[in-house]
Amino acid sequence: MAAPVTVYGPVISPAVARVAACLLEKDVPFQIEPVDMSKGEHKSPSFLKLQPFGQVPAFKDHLTTVFESRAICRYICDQYADRGNQALLGKKEDGAVGRAAIEQWIEAESQSFNPPSLAMIFQLAFAPMMGRTTDMAVVEQNEVKLTKVLDVYDQRLGESQYFAGDDFSLADLVHLPNADFLVNRTNKAGLITERKNLARWWDDVSTRPAWKKVIEMQSAPRPS
Amino acid sequence: MAAPVTVYGPVISPAVARVAACLLEKDVPFQIEPVDMSKGEHKSPSFLKLQPFGQVPAFKDHLTTVFESRAICRYICDQYADRGNQALLGKKEDGAVGRAAIEQWIEAESQSFNPPSLAMIFQLAFAPMMGRTTDMAVVEQNEVKLTKVLDVYDQRLGESQYFAGDDFSLADLVHLPNADFLVNRTNKAGLITERKNLARWWDDVSTRPAWKKVIEMQSAPRPS
Repeated sequence: MAAPVTVYGPVISPAVARVAACLLEKDVPFQIEPVDMSKGEHKSPSFLKLQPFGQVPAFKDHLTTVFESRAICRYICDQYADRGNQALLGKKEDGAVGRAAIEQWIEAESQSFNPPSLAMIFQLAFAPMMGRTTDMAVVEQNEVKLTKVLDVYDQRLGESQYFAGDDFSLADLVHLPNADFLVNRTNKAGLITERKNLARWWDDVSTRPAWKKVIEMQSAPRPS
Repeated sequence: MAAPVTVYGPVISPAVARVAACLLEKDVPFQIEPVDMSKGEHKSPSFLKLQPFGQVPAFKDHLTTVFESRAICRYICDQYADRGNQALLGKKEDGAVGRAAIEQWIEAESQSFNPPSLAMIFQLAFAPMMGRTTDMAVVEQNEVKLTKVLDVYDQRLGESQYFAGDDFSLADLVHLPNADFLVNRTNKAGLITERKNLARWWDDVSTRPAWKKVIEMQSAPRPS
């Protein structure tokens, strides 16, 4: 029987890894359908039906298709509410207030953390892989921006164990792909590991079984 | 009796206007608490307790505080589910699938539409207001990016009346502030009004009573 859930895109992509981490936390079985971006498969008519901007990931289950990694993660939490980790978007009894406490930090990731961290990752990790020259001016500009965000994060994580309180949630999960790249695939690990509370948080969230499985998937040889 | 809901920030700010539009659609009474950014009030200790990044808007009701405009909008829809427009995050009977159809276009706004349109608005509308020189290179670079996004939007809005289907939703609403600036306060209106389906959509969504009320609030003299 085919897995009911398909994620389209290479799992090395931070946005694809974000969705994979969410599915693993939720214990929802899935298959990865590789999209060969070097061959332009993400711009093919069939892929554009799933994702009109031609970006990865795209997502399909037996009920619908969804694009944009953070929208896909929310859908997985809502649709598969009774499976796996049931606190990712707040416990049922915490209602709209509990969900909002998480949503505001998901948006912080999306608006404040992701743009500078992704720009740095692109320059420091992806550009060398693709044989391009790293633009150090871009790295430095974005490091200035990211530093301000991480100072706020470190303060926040001195007040509570996770971004939204006592429980690991989607607010923590959405940060994992870019944070992992920074720590493990660039020379900028210190941005996270030299901030006391962020370092404590990183040791915790990066060793969760779901994230360790994503790293294993990223390291596996690509299907030919 | 004081209004139960407070939005902190100047309503001319696109992100504050986004939240005001949502509250008006939901028929939730609110008050605006001006934050004088020219005096650095958004960096004051009391404001940073509401919004740790020192950005507007911040939001407070009798139950909680929330930051980030799109997180605030989601909270308003969830917490005040039975008031005003009840389809903004999908009709109850459409469940997680209906919400995801909306969420993916909210994320498209956040990831693809907002960055280039906000950069253009800053250069073409805010910089002159603040006595700064417009950087036309930034305008042109972002217009190239925005054009690609609007081509996808125009195609989408040729398939359905609104972004997520037959009903006006939060996916449409989140676009209103930046789209309004582009159309009414820059010389780039044609980006929207010269695309057939986007123009039809814009005529519809921008004349909704809630949005017209936001424009009225933006035009009112500021309290001294």
